[in-house]
Amino acid sequence: MNFSEKLKDYTTKINKALLLAAEQFPKNNIVSEAMAYSLLAGGKRIRPVIAVAVAESLGGDVDEALCYGCALEMIHTYSLIHDDLPCMDNDTLRRGIPTCHVKYGEAYALLAGDGLLTYAFEYITKNAKDKARAFDFMAYLSSMAGIGGMVGGQTDDIGAEKVKVGIDALKSIHARKTGALINAAGAAGAIAAGKDASFAEGYTKSLGMAFQIKDDILDVEGDAEKMGKTLMKDMNSEKSTFVTLLGLDEAKAQLDAETKKAIEACEIFGTRKDFCISLAKAMLEREN
Amino acid sequence: MNFSEKLKDYTTKINKALLLAAEQFPKNNIVSEAMAYSLLAGGKRIRPVIAVAVAESLGGDVDEALCYGCALEMIHTYSLIHDDLPCMDNDTLRRGIPTCHVKYGEAYALLAGDGLLTYAFEYITKNAKDKARAFDFMAYLSSMAGIGGMVGGQTDDIGAEKVKVGIDALKSIHARKTGALINAAGAAGAIAAGKDASFAEGYTKSLGMAFQIKDDILDVEGDAEKMGKTLMKDMNSEKSTFVTLLGLDEAKAQLDAETKKAIEACEIFGTRKDFCISLAKAMLEREN
Repeated sequence: MNFSEKLKDYTTKINKALLLAAEQFPKNNIVSEAMAYSLLAGGKRIRPVIAVAVAESLGGDVDEALCYGCALEMIHTYSLIHDDLPCMDNDTLRRGIPTCHVKYGEAYALLAGDGLLTYAFEYITKNAKDKARAFDFMAYLSSMAGIGGMVGGQTDDIGAEKVKVGIDALKSIHARKTGALINAAGAAGAIAAGKDASFAEGYTKSLGMAFQIKDDILDVEGDAEKMGKTLMKDMNSEKSTFVTLLGLDEAKAQLDAETKKAIEACEIFGTRKDFCISLAKAMLEREN
Repeated sequence: MNFSEKLKDYTTKINKALLLAAEQFPKNNIVSEAMAYSLLAGGKRIRPVIAVAVAESLGGDVDEALCYGCALEMIHTYSLIHDDLPCMDNDTLRRGIPTCHVKYGEAYALLAGDGLLTYAFEYITKNAKDKARAFDFMAYLSSMAGIGGMVGGQTDDIGAEKVKVGIDALKSIHARKTGALINAAGAAGAIAAGKDASFAEGYTKSLGMAFQIKDDILDVEGDAEKMGKTLMKDMNSEKSTFVTLLGLDEAKAQLDAETKKAIEACEIFGTRKDFCISLAKAMLEREN
Protein backbone atom coordinates (compact mmCIF):
# COMPACT_ATOMS: atom_id res chain seq x y z
CA MET A 1 0.00 0.00 0.00
CA ASN A 2 1.19 3.51 -0.72
CA PHE A 3 0.83 6.30 1.85
CA SER A 4 -2.66 7.52 0.98
CA GLU A 5 -4.06 3.97 0.76
CA LYS A 6 -2.55 3.18 4.15
CA LEU A 7 -3.85 6.43 5.62
CA LYS A 8 -7.32 5.62 4.31
CA ASP A 9 -7.04 2.10 5.72
CA TYR A 10 -6.11 3.47 9.16
CA THR A 11 -8.88 6.09 9.07
CA THR A 12 -11.48 3.51 8.09
CA LYS A 13 -10.43 1.27 11.00
CA ILE A 14 -10.53 4.21 13.41
CA ASN A 15 -13.96 5.37 12.27
CA LYS A 16 -15.31 1.82 12.62
CA ALA A 17 -13.93 1.56 16.15
CA LEU A 18 -15.40 4.95 17.11
CA LEU A 19 -18.78 3.96 15.69
CA LEU A 20 -18.68 0.74 17.72
CA ALA A 21 -17.77 2.77 20.81
CA ALA A 22 -20.67 5.19 20.28
CA GLU A 23 -23.05 2.26 19.92
CA GLN A 24 -22.16 1.32 23.50
CA PHE A 25 -23.33 4.66 24.91
CA PRO A 26 -26.57 4.25 26.92
CA LYS A 27 -29.73 4.35 24.78
CA ASN A 28 -32.55 6.91 25.09
CA ASN A 29 -30.31 9.56 26.49
CA ILE A 30 -30.00 12.93 24.78
CA VAL A 31 -26.41 13.39 25.97
CA SER A 32 -25.38 10.00 24.56
CA GLU A 33 -26.79 11.26 21.29
CA ALA A 34 -24.88 14.55 21.56
CA MET A 35 -21.65 12.66 22.37
CA ALA A 36 -22.10 10.47 19.29
CA TYR A 37 -23.05 13.48 17.13
CA SER A 38 -19.75 15.21 17.82
CA LEU A 39 -17.56 12.09 17.99
CA LEU A 40 -18.81 10.79 14.64
CA ALA A 41 -18.82 14.14 12.84
CA GLY A 42 -15.65 13.19 11.01
CA GLY A 43 -12.42 15.09 11.21
CA LYS A 44 -8.94 13.99 10.26
CA ARG A 45 -8.57 11.53 13.17
CA ILE A 46 -4.97 12.65 13.29
CA ARG A 47 -4.38 11.58 16.92
CA PRO A 48 -5.49 7.96 16.49
CA VAL A 49 -3.69 7.84 13.12
CA ILE A 50 -0.44 8.84 14.86
CA ALA A 51 -1.07 6.29 17.64
CA VAL A 52 -1.58 3.44 15.19
CA ALA A 53 1.21 4.53 12.84
CA VAL A 54 3.77 4.83 15.65
CA ALA A 55 2.78 1.42 17.02
CA GLU A 56 3.08 -0.22 13.61
CA SER A 57 6.36 1.57 12.82
CA LEU A 58 7.79 0.18 16.07
CA GLY A 59 6.46 -3.33 15.43
CA GLY A 60 3.97 -2.96 18.30
CA ASP A 61 0.38 -4.02 18.95
CA VAL A 62 -1.75 -2.01 16.53
CA ASP A 63 -5.08 -2.97 18.13
CA GLU A 64 -3.89 -1.75 21.51
CA ALA A 65 -2.76 1.54 19.96
CA LEU A 66 -6.13 1.81 18.22
CA CYS A 67 -7.87 1.48 21.59
CA TYR A 68 -5.73 4.25 23.11
CA GLY A 69 -6.10 6.34 19.95
CA CYS A 70 -9.91 6.19 20.10
CA ALA A 71 -9.76 7.38 23.71
CA LEU A 72 -7.60 10.28 22.53
CA GLU A 73 -10.17 11.16 19.87
CA MET A 74 -12.86 11.25 22.58
CA ILE A 75 -10.75 13.66 24.61
CA HIS A 76 -9.99 15.77 21.54
CA THR A 77 -13.72 15.89 20.72
CA TYR A 78 -14.70 16.87 24.28
CA SER A 79 -12.18 19.72 24.13
CA LEU A 80 -13.72 20.97 20.88
CA ILE A 81 -17.27 20.83 22.31
CA HIS A 82 -16.24 22.84 25.39
CA ASP A 83 -14.07 25.22 23.31
CA ASP A 84 -17.01 25.99 21.04
CA LEU A 85 -19.34 26.94 23.92
CA PRO A 86 -20.58 30.56 24.12
CA CYS A 87 -18.46 31.26 27.21
CA MET A 88 -15.35 30.16 25.28
CA ASP A 89 -14.97 30.71 21.49
CA ASN A 90 -18.72 30.81 20.77
CA ASP A 91 -18.36 28.90 17.48
CA THR A 92 -21.42 27.79 15.56
CA LEU A 93 -19.82 25.59 12.89
CA ARG A 94 -17.43 22.67 13.34
CA ARG A 95 -16.44 20.01 10.82
CA GLY A 96 -19.02 21.52 8.47
CA ILE A 97 -22.02 21.01 10.77
CA PRO A 98 -23.58 22.98 13.66
CA THR A 99 -21.53 22.80 16.86
CA CYS A 100 -22.81 20.58 19.66
CA HIS A 101 -24.42 23.38 21.69
CA VAL A 102 -26.11 24.86 18.62
CA LYS A 103 -27.66 21.46 17.95
CA TYR A 104 -28.39 20.29 21.54
CA GLY A 105 -28.27 23.40 23.71
CA GLU A 106 -25.56 24.49 26.11
CA ALA A 107 -26.40 22.30 29.09
CA TYR A 108 -26.41 19.06 27.12
CA ALA A 109 -23.27 20.11 25.20
CA LEU A 110 -21.48 20.76 28.48
CA LEU A 111 -22.49 17.29 29.70
CA ALA A 112 -21.57 15.72 26.34
CA GLY A 113 -18.04 17.08 26.81
CA ASP A 114 -17.90 15.79 30.38
CA GLY A 115 -19.28 12.46 29.19
CA LEU A 116 -16.70 12.04 26.43
CA LEU A 117 -13.79 12.95 28.70
CA THR A 118 -14.94 10.40 31.27
CA TYR A 119 -15.73 7.79 28.61
CA ALA A 120 -12.16 8.01 27.27
CA PHE A 121 -10.99 6.38 30.51
CA GLU A 122 -13.93 3.97 30.66
CA TYR A 123 -13.19 2.95 27.07
CA ILE A 124 -9.56 2.19 27.85
CA THR A 125 -10.40 0.14 30.95
CA LYS A 126 -13.02 -1.81 29.00
CA ASN A 127 -10.98 -2.47 25.87
CA ALA A 128 -7.29 -2.54 26.72
CA LYS A 129 -5.67 -5.96 26.61
CA ASP A 130 -2.86 -5.33 29.07
CA LYS A 131 -3.68 -3.67 32.41
CA ALA A 132 -0.13 -2.54 33.19
CA ARG A 133 0.36 -0.89 29.80
CA ALA A 134 -3.09 0.69 29.94
CA PHE A 135 -2.28 2.06 33.39
CA ASP A 136 0.92 3.63 32.01
CA PHE A 137 -0.99 5.12 29.11
CA MET A 138 -3.70 6.56 31.38
CA ALA A 139 -0.95 8.10 33.54
CA TYR A 140 0.61 9.83 30.55
CA LEU A 141 -2.76 10.69 28.97
CA SER A 142 -4.18 12.33 32.09
CA SER A 143 -1.07 14.44 32.58
CA MET A 144 -1.10 15.54 28.92
CA ALA A 145 -4.86 16.25 28.82
CA GLY A 146 -5.10 18.10 32.12
CA ILE A 147 -4.03 21.30 33.80
CA GLY A 148 -0.32 20.58 33.15
CA GLY A 149 -1.10 19.95 29.47
CA MET A 150 -4.08 20.72 27.25
CA VAL A 151 -6.30 22.42 29.87
CA GLY A 152 -3.34 24.53 31.01
CA GLY A 153 -2.67 25.55 27.40
CA GLN A 154 -6.32 26.48 26.88
CA THR A 155 -6.14 28.60 30.02
CA ASP A 156 -3.11 30.55 28.84
CA ASP A 157 -4.67 30.82 25.40
CA ILE A 158 -7.61 32.72 26.92
CA GLY A 159 -5.15 34.97 28.75
CA ALA A 160 -3.39 35.62 25.43
CA GLU A 161 -6.58 37.10 23.99
CA LYS A 162 -6.31 39.94 26.45
CA VAL A 163 -2.57 40.64 26.41
CA LYS A 164 -0.26 40.44 23.40
CA VAL A 165 2.16 37.55 23.95
CA GLY A 166 5.61 36.88 22.51
CA ILE A 167 6.58 33.97 20.26
CA ASP A 168 8.03 31.89 23.12
CA ALA A 169 4.82 32.24 25.14
CA LEU A 170 2.79 31.34 22.05
CA LYS A 171 4.90 28.22 21.50
CA SER A 172 4.47 27.24 25.15
CA ILE A 173 0.70 27.65 24.83
CA HIS A 174 0.52 25.47 21.74
CA ALA A 175 2.94 22.86 23.04
CA ARG A 176 0.26 22.23 25.67
CA LYS A 177 -3.01 23.17 23.95
CA THR A 178 -2.42 21.10 20.80
CA GLY A 179 0.96 19.47 21.30
CA ALA A 180 0.20 17.58 24.50
CA LEU A 181 -2.45 15.34 22.91
CA ILE A 182 -0.21 14.77 19.87
CA ASN A 183 2.47 13.64 22.30
CA ALA A 184 -0.08 11.38 23.97
CA ALA A 185 -0.81 9.90 20.53
CA GLY A 186 2.87 9.09 20.12
CA ALA A 187 2.90 7.65 23.64
CA ALA A 188 -0.08 5.45 22.76
CA GLY A 189 1.91 3.92 19.91
CA ALA A 190 5.12 3.67 21.90
CA ILE A 191 3.47 1.99 24.91
CA ALA A 192 1.63 -0.42 22.60
CA ALA A 193 5.10 -1.37 21.31
CA GLY A 194 6.49 -1.92 24.81
CA LYS A 195 8.48 1.34 24.82
CA ASP A 196 8.46 4.24 27.29
CA ALA A 197 5.67 6.81 26.87
CA SER A 198 8.20 9.44 25.81
CA PHE A 199 9.95 7.27 23.20
CA ALA A 200 8.45 9.07 20.17
CA GLU A 201 8.35 12.59 21.67
CA GLY A 202 11.06 13.89 19.32
CA TYR A 203 8.73 13.11 16.43
CA THR A 204 5.44 14.18 18.00
CA LYS A 205 6.69 17.46 19.48
CA SER A 206 7.77 18.75 16.07
CA LEU A 207 4.68 17.30 14.44
CA GLY A 208 2.43 19.06 16.97
CA MET A 209 4.15 22.40 16.51
CA ALA A 210 3.99 22.06 12.71
CA PHE A 211 0.31 21.18 13.02
CA GLN A 212 -0.47 24.37 14.92
CA ILE A 213 1.58 26.65 12.67
CA LYS A 214 -0.23 25.14 9.67
CA ASP A 215 -3.59 25.77 11.40
CA ASP A 216 -2.72 29.43 11.82
CA ILE A 217 -1.67 29.66 8.17
CA LEU A 218 -4.89 27.97 7.06
CA ASP A 219 -6.89 30.45 9.14
CA VAL A 220 -5.56 33.11 6.76
CA GLU A 221 -5.08 31.24 3.49
CA GLY A 222 -7.51 28.33 3.80
CA ASP A 223 -10.77 27.59 2.04
CA ALA A 224 -13.69 27.90 4.50
CA GLU A 225 -15.61 25.13 2.77
CA LYS A 226 -12.74 22.65 2.92
CA MET A 227 -12.01 23.66 6.52
CA GLY A 228 -15.63 23.26 7.63
CA LYS A 229 -15.36 26.24 9.98
CA THR A 230 -15.29 30.03 10.04
CA LEU A 231 -11.92 31.42 8.97
CA MET A 232 -10.02 34.66 9.66
CA LYS A 233 -11.46 34.48 13.16
CA ASP A 234 -8.12 34.76 14.91
CA MET A 235 -6.96 37.44 12.49
CA ASN A 236 -10.12 39.47 13.00
CA SER A 237 -9.95 39.14 16.78
CA GLU A 238 -6.32 40.33 16.75
CA LYS A 239 -5.35 37.24 18.69
CA SER A 240 -1.66 36.32 18.74
CA THR A 241 -0.95 33.55 16.22
CA PHE A 242 2.18 32.40 14.43
CA VAL A 243 1.04 34.49 11.45
CA THR A 244 0.25 37.68 13.36
CA LEU A 245 3.49 37.46 15.37
CA LEU A 246 5.89 36.28 12.65
CA GLY A 247 4.21 37.26 9.39
CA LEU A 248 3.12 34.73 6.77
CA ASP A 249 6.56 34.10 5.22
CA GLU A 250 8.36 33.46 8.51
CA ALA A 251 5.45 31.29 9.74
CA LYS A 252 5.86 29.16 6.61
CA ALA A 253 9.63 28.97 7.12
CA GLN A 254 9.09 27.73 10.68
CA LEU A 255 6.51 25.22 9.46
CA ASP A 256 9.13 23.85 7.04
CA ALA A 257 11.75 23.72 9.79
CA GLU A 258 9.47 21.84 12.25
CA THR A 259 8.44 19.41 9.51
CA LYS A 260 12.11 18.76 8.74
CA LYS A 261 12.80 18.09 12.42
CA ALA A 262 9.86 15.68 12.59
CA ILE A 263 11.17 13.81 9.54
CA GLU A 264 14.67 13.57 11.00
CA ALA A 265 13.21 12.21 14.25
CA CYS A 266 11.72 9.31 12.26
CA GLU A 267 15.10 7.52 12.48
CA ILE A 268 13.78 5.90 15.69
CA PHE A 269 11.40 3.89 13.50
CA GLY A 270 14.30 2.26 11.60
CA THR A 271 13.28 0.42 8.43
CA ARG A 272 9.57 1.12 9.03
CA LYS A 273 9.90 4.90 9.04
CA ASP A 274 8.27 5.69 5.68
CA PHE A 275 4.66 6.17 6.79
CA CYS A 276 5.54 8.54 9.64
CA ILE A 277 7.73 10.60 7.28
CA SER A 278 4.91 10.84 4.74
CA LEU A 279 2.49 11.77 7.52
CA ALA A 280 4.68 14.72 8.52
CA LYS A 281 4.82 15.84 4.89
CA ALA A 282 1.05 15.44 4.49
CA MET A 283 0.48 17.69 7.52
CA LEU A 284 2.62 20.34 5.84
CA GLU A 285 0.57 20.18 2.66
CA ARG A 286 -2.93 19.68 4.06
CA GLU A 287 -5.78 21.93 2.99
CA ASN A 288 -7.96 21.37 6.05
CA MET B 1 -12.14 6.94 69.57
CA ASN B 2 -15.89 7.47 69.42
CA PHE B 3 -17.70 8.09 66.14
CA SER B 4 -17.38 11.87 65.98
CA GLU B 5 -13.70 11.81 66.94
CA LYS B 6 -13.03 9.20 64.28
CA LEU B 7 -15.04 11.15 61.70
CA LYS B 8 -13.03 14.26 62.53
CA ASP B 9 -9.81 12.26 62.27
CA TYR B 10 -10.79 10.96 58.83
CA THR B 11 -11.86 14.42 57.64
CA THR B 12 -8.62 16.00 58.83
CA LYS B 13 -6.59 13.37 56.94
CA ILE B 14 -8.68 13.89 53.82
CA ASN B 15 -8.38 17.68 53.90
CA LYS B 16 -4.61 17.39 54.37
CA ALA B 17 -4.33 15.05 51.37
CA LEU B 18 -6.48 17.36 49.21
CA LEU B 19 -4.36 20.37 50.21
CA LEU B 20 -1.21 18.46 49.25
CA ALA B 21 -2.82 17.53 45.93
CA ALA B 22 -3.76 21.15 45.19
CA GLU B 23 -0.20 22.22 45.95
CA GLN B 24 0.89 20.04 43.02
CA PHE B 25 -1.26 21.94 40.50
CA PRO B 26 0.91 24.03 38.13
CA LYS B 27 1.83 27.46 39.52
CA ASN B 28 0.90 30.83 37.98
CA ASN B 29 -2.17 29.45 36.29
CA ILE B 30 -5.56 30.98 36.97
CA VAL B 31 -7.36 27.67 36.38
CA SER B 32 -5.09 25.88 38.87
CA GLU B 33 -6.18 28.54 41.33
CA ALA B 34 -9.86 28.05 40.47
CA MET B 35 -9.49 24.27 40.85
CA ALA B 36 -7.94 24.71 44.30
CA TYR B 37 -10.55 27.32 45.28
CA SER B 38 -13.41 24.89 44.74
CA LEU B 39 -11.61 21.74 45.89
CA LEU B 40 -10.53 23.30 49.18
CA ALA B 41 -13.82 25.12 49.90
CA GLY B 42 -14.72 22.52 52.48
CA GLY B 43 -17.79 20.36 52.36
CA LYS B 44 -18.55 17.16 54.20
CA ARG B 45 -16.03 15.05 52.25
CA ILE B 46 -18.58 12.28 52.48
CA ARG B 47 -17.23 10.30 49.50
CA PRO B 48 -13.64 10.00 50.74
CA VAL B 49 -14.97 9.36 54.27
CA ILE B 50 -16.96 6.39 52.95
CA ALA B 51 -13.93 5.16 50.98
CA VAL B 52 -11.66 5.23 54.00
CA ALA B 53 -14.31 3.88 56.39
CA VAL B 54 -15.17 0.93 54.16
CA ALA B 55 -11.49 0.09 53.68
CA GLU B 56 -10.81 0.21 57.41
CA SER B 57 -13.98 -1.76 58.24
CA LEU B 58 -12.80 -4.49 55.85
CA GLY B 59 -9.26 -4.48 57.23
CA GLY B 60 -7.93 -2.99 53.99
CA ASP B 61 -5.29 -0.44 53.02
CA VAL B 62 -6.56 2.91 54.32
CA ASP B 63 -3.94 4.99 52.47
CA GLU B 64 -4.91 3.42 49.16
CA ALA B 65 -8.58 4.15 49.86
CA LEU B 66 -7.65 7.72 50.79
CA CYS B 67 -5.95 8.12 47.41
CA TYR B 68 -9.05 6.87 45.56
CA GLY B 69 -11.30 8.93 47.84
CA CYS B 70 -9.45 12.16 47.05
CA ALA B 71 -9.89 11.43 43.33
CA LEU B 72 -13.61 10.99 44.00
CA GLU B 73 -13.75 14.35 45.76
CA MET B 74 -12.11 15.96 42.70
CA ILE B 75 -14.79 14.43 40.47
CA HIS B 76 -17.54 15.47 42.87
CA THR B 77 -16.14 19.03 42.92
CA TYR B 78 -15.91 19.23 39.11
CA SER B 79 -19.56 18.14 38.88
CA LEU B 80 -20.57 20.92 41.30
CA ILE B 81 -18.62 23.56 39.34
CA HIS B 82 -20.26 22.54 36.06
CA ASP B 83 -23.70 22.14 37.70
CA ASP B 84 -23.49 25.68 39.07
CA LEU B 85 -22.74 27.26 35.65
CA PRO B 86 -25.33 29.66 34.19
CA CYS B 87 -26.33 27.17 31.47
CA MET B 88 -27.10 24.59 34.19
CA ASP B 89 -28.45 25.58 37.63
CA ASN B 90 -26.99 29.11 37.60
CA ASP B 91 -26.10 29.02 41.31
CA THR B 92 -24.11 31.83 42.87
CA LEU B 93 -23.41 30.37 46.32
CA ARG B 94 -21.80 27.01 47.17
CA ARG B 95 -20.39 25.84 50.50
CA GLY B 96 -21.00 29.37 51.79
CA ILE B 97 -18.79 31.14 49.24
CA PRO B 98 -19.29 32.43 45.68
CA THR B 99 -19.46 29.65 43.10
CA CYS B 100 -16.43 29.10 40.86
CA HIS B 101 -17.79 30.99 37.85
CA VAL B 102 -18.91 33.94 40.00
CA LYS B 103 -15.36 34.19 41.33
CA TYR B 104 -13.36 33.32 38.17
CA GLY B 105 -15.74 33.79 35.24
CA GLU B 106 -17.44 31.13 33.17
CA ALA B 107 -14.59 30.17 30.86
CA TYR B 108 -12.12 29.50 33.66
CA ALA B 109 -14.78 27.71 35.73
CA LEU B 110 -15.54 25.43 32.79
CA LEU B 111 -11.83 24.64 32.47
CA ALA B 112 -11.48 24.20 36.24
CA GLY B 113 -14.15 21.49 36.07
CA ASP B 114 -12.42 19.82 33.12
CA GLY B 115 -9.10 20.12 34.95
CA LEU B 116 -10.40 18.49 38.14
CA LEU B 117 -12.06 15.63 36.28
CA THR B 118 -8.84 14.92 34.41
CA TYR B 119 -6.70 15.39 37.52
CA ALA B 120 -8.71 12.74 39.36
CA PHE B 121 -7.21 10.14 37.02
CA GLU B 122 -3.77 11.75 37.04
CA TYR B 123 -3.86 11.77 40.84
CA ILE B 124 -4.66 8.06 41.01
CA THR B 125 -1.93 7.11 38.54
CA LYS B 126 0.60 9.24 40.46
CA ASN B 127 -0.31 8.11 43.98
CA ALA B 128 -1.74 4.60 43.86
CA LYS B 129 0.53 1.91 45.27
CA ASP B 130 -0.83 -1.03 43.29
CA LYS B 131 -1.30 -0.65 39.52
CA ALA B 132 -3.72 -3.57 39.11
CA ARG B 133 -6.02 -2.38 41.90
CA ALA B 134 -5.84 1.22 40.67
CA PHE B 135 -6.76 0.01 37.18
CA ASP B 136 -9.81 -1.78 38.61
CA PHE B 137 -10.82 1.30 40.53
CA MET B 138 -10.45 3.57 37.49
CA ALA B 139 -12.61 1.13 35.52
CA TYR B 140 -15.40 1.31 38.11
CA LEU B 141 -14.94 5.03 38.72
CA SER B 142 -15.16 6.00 35.05
CA SER B 143 -18.31 3.94 34.55
CA MET B 144 -19.94 5.46 37.66
CA ALA B 145 -18.90 9.05 36.86
CA GLY B 146 -19.80 9.00 33.17
CA ILE B 147 -22.78 8.80 30.87
CA GLY B 148 -23.92 5.46 32.37
CA GLY B 149 -23.70 6.98 35.86
CA MET B 150 -23.46 10.53 37.17
CA VAL B 151 -23.48 12.36 33.81
CA GLY B 152 -26.44 10.24 32.66
CA GLY B 153 -28.28 11.08 35.87
CA GLN B 154 -27.59 14.81 35.42
CA THR B 155 -28.94 14.55 31.88
CA ASP B 156 -32.21 12.97 32.98
CA ASP B 157 -32.39 15.45 35.85
CA ILE B 158 -32.48 18.31 33.32
CA GLY B 159 -35.19 16.47 31.41
CA ALA B 160 -37.16 16.15 34.67
CA GLU B 161 -37.30 19.94 35.00
CA LYS B 162 -39.47 20.07 31.93
CA VAL B 163 -41.74 17.06 32.45
CA LYS B 164 -43.15 15.86 35.78
CA VAL B 165 -41.60 12.45 36.51
CA GLY B 166 -42.81 9.58 38.72
CA ILE B 167 -41.12 8.28 41.85
CA ASP B 168 -39.40 5.39 40.02
CA ALA B 169 -37.90 7.73 37.44
CA LEU B 170 -36.79 10.07 40.24
CA LYS B 171 -35.08 7.18 42.05
CA SER B 172 -33.36 6.13 38.82
CA ILE B 173 -32.09 9.68 38.29
CA HIS B 174 -30.70 9.91 41.81
CA ALA B 175 -29.24 6.40 41.79
CA ARG B 176 -27.00 7.77 39.02
CA LYS B 177 -26.71 11.48 39.75
CA THR B 178 -25.72 11.10 43.42
CA GLY B 179 -25.70 7.36 44.06
CA ALA B 180 -23.12 6.37 41.45
CA LEU B 181 -20.28 8.30 43.12
CA ILE B 182 -21.34 7.02 46.56
CA ASN B 183 -21.08 3.51 45.09
CA ALA B 184 -17.67 4.41 43.72
CA ALA B 185 -16.68 5.48 47.25
CA GLY B 186 -17.68 2.06 48.55
CA ALA B 187 -15.78 0.46 45.67
CA ALA B 188 -12.69 2.49 46.58
CA GLY B 189 -12.77 0.98 50.07
CA ALA B 190 -13.60 -2.51 48.87
CA ILE B 191 -10.83 -2.58 46.23
CA ALA B 192 -8.33 -1.22 48.77
CA ALA B 193 -9.27 -4.25 50.89
CA GLY B 194 -8.77 -6.70 48.01
CA LYS B 195 -12.50 -7.20 47.43
CA ASP B 196 -14.58 -6.78 44.26
CA ALA B 197 -15.67 -3.24 43.38
CA SER B 198 -19.30 -4.14 44.09
CA PHE B 199 -18.65 -5.74 47.50
CA ALA B 200 -20.13 -2.86 49.53
CA GLU B 201 -22.90 -1.87 47.08
CA GLY B 202 -25.66 -3.06 49.41
CA TYR B 203 -24.49 -0.47 51.91
CA THR B 204 -23.68 2.37 49.53
CA LYS B 205 -26.84 2.09 47.40
CA SER B 206 -29.08 2.64 50.43
CA LEU B 207 -26.74 5.27 51.82
CA GLY B 208 -26.80 7.17 48.50
CA MET B 209 -30.59 7.07 48.29
CA ALA B 210 -30.93 8.18 51.93
CA PHE B 211 -28.47 10.98 51.21
CA GLN B 212 -30.57 12.34 48.34
CA ILE B 213 -33.90 12.07 50.18
CA LYS B 214 -32.33 13.95 53.08
CA ASP B 215 -31.06 16.62 50.67
CA ASP B 216 -34.58 17.14 49.37
CA ILE B 217 -35.92 17.37 52.93
CA LEU B 218 -33.22 19.88 53.88
CA ASP B 219 -34.12 21.97 50.83
CA VAL B 220 -37.49 22.51 52.55
CA GLU B 221 -36.66 22.32 56.25
CA GLY B 222 -32.96 23.25 56.35
CA ASP B 223 -31.20 26.35 57.62
CA ALA B 224 -29.72 28.29 54.68
CA GLU B 225 -26.76 29.44 56.76
CA LYS B 226 -25.82 25.93 57.87
CA MET B 227 -26.35 24.62 54.34
CA GLY B 228 -24.20 27.33 52.73
CA LYS B 229 -26.50 27.55 49.71
CA THR B 230 -29.85 28.94 48.56
CA LEU B 231 -32.77 26.81 49.78
CA MET B 232 -36.32 26.18 48.54
CA LYS B 233 -34.86 26.34 45.06
CA ASP B 234 -36.27 23.03 43.92
CA MET B 235 -39.60 23.73 45.63
CA ASN B 236 -39.88 27.13 43.98
CA SER B 237 -38.96 25.76 40.55
CA GLU B 238 -41.63 23.04 40.89
CA LYS B 239 -38.99 20.45 40.18
CA SER B 240 -39.80 16.83 41.07
CA THR B 241 -38.17 15.90 44.38
CA PHE B 242 -38.88 13.24 46.97
CA VAL B 243 -40.76 15.88 48.95
CA THR B 244 -42.85 17.24 46.07
CA LEU B 245 -43.72 13.74 44.84
CA LEU B 246 -44.26 11.97 48.19
CA GLY B 247 -44.96 14.77 50.66
CA LEU B 248 -42.75 15.53 53.65
CA ASP B 249 -44.01 12.73 55.92
CA GLU B 250 -43.64 9.95 53.37
CA ALA B 251 -40.23 11.29 52.30
CA LYS B 252 -39.12 11.06 55.94
CA ALA B 253 -40.52 7.52 56.21
CA GLN B 254 -38.53 6.48 53.12
CA LEU B 255 -35.43 8.13 54.53
CA ASP B 256 -35.84 6.02 57.69
CA ALA B 257 -36.36 2.87 55.62
CA GLU B 258 -33.26 3.44 53.45
CA THR B 259 -31.16 4.20 56.53
CA LYS B 260 -32.38 0.97 58.13
CA LYS B 261 -31.41 -0.97 54.98
CA ALA B 262 -27.96 0.65 54.98
CA ILE B 263 -27.46 -0.33 58.64
CA GLU B 264 -28.55 -3.92 57.98
CA ALA B 265 -26.09 -4.11 55.06
CA CYS B 266 -23.28 -3.34 57.52
CA GLU B 267 -23.16 -7.04 58.45
CA ILE B 268 -20.55 -7.43 55.67
CA PHE B 269 -18.13 -5.48 57.87
CA GLY B 270 -18.33 -8.09 60.66
CA THR B 271 -16.86 -6.97 63.99
CA ARG B 272 -15.71 -3.64 62.53
CA LYS B 273 -19.18 -2.48 61.48
CA ASP B 274 -19.77 0.25 64.11
CA PHE B 275 -18.37 3.25 62.26
CA CYS B 276 -20.32 2.56 59.05
CA ILE B 277 -23.53 2.11 61.07
CA SER B 278 -22.96 5.42 62.87
CA LEU B 279 -22.19 7.08 59.53
CA ALA B 280 -25.57 6.00 58.14
CA LYS B 281 -27.30 7.36 61.26
CA ALA B 282 -25.34 10.63 61.02
CA MET B 283 -26.49 11.10 57.43
CA LEU B 284 -30.08 10.74 58.63
CA GLU B 285 -29.62 13.40 61.28
CA ARG B 286 -27.36 15.87 59.46
CA GLU B 287 -28.28 19.54 59.29
CA ASN B 288 -26.23 20.34 56.18
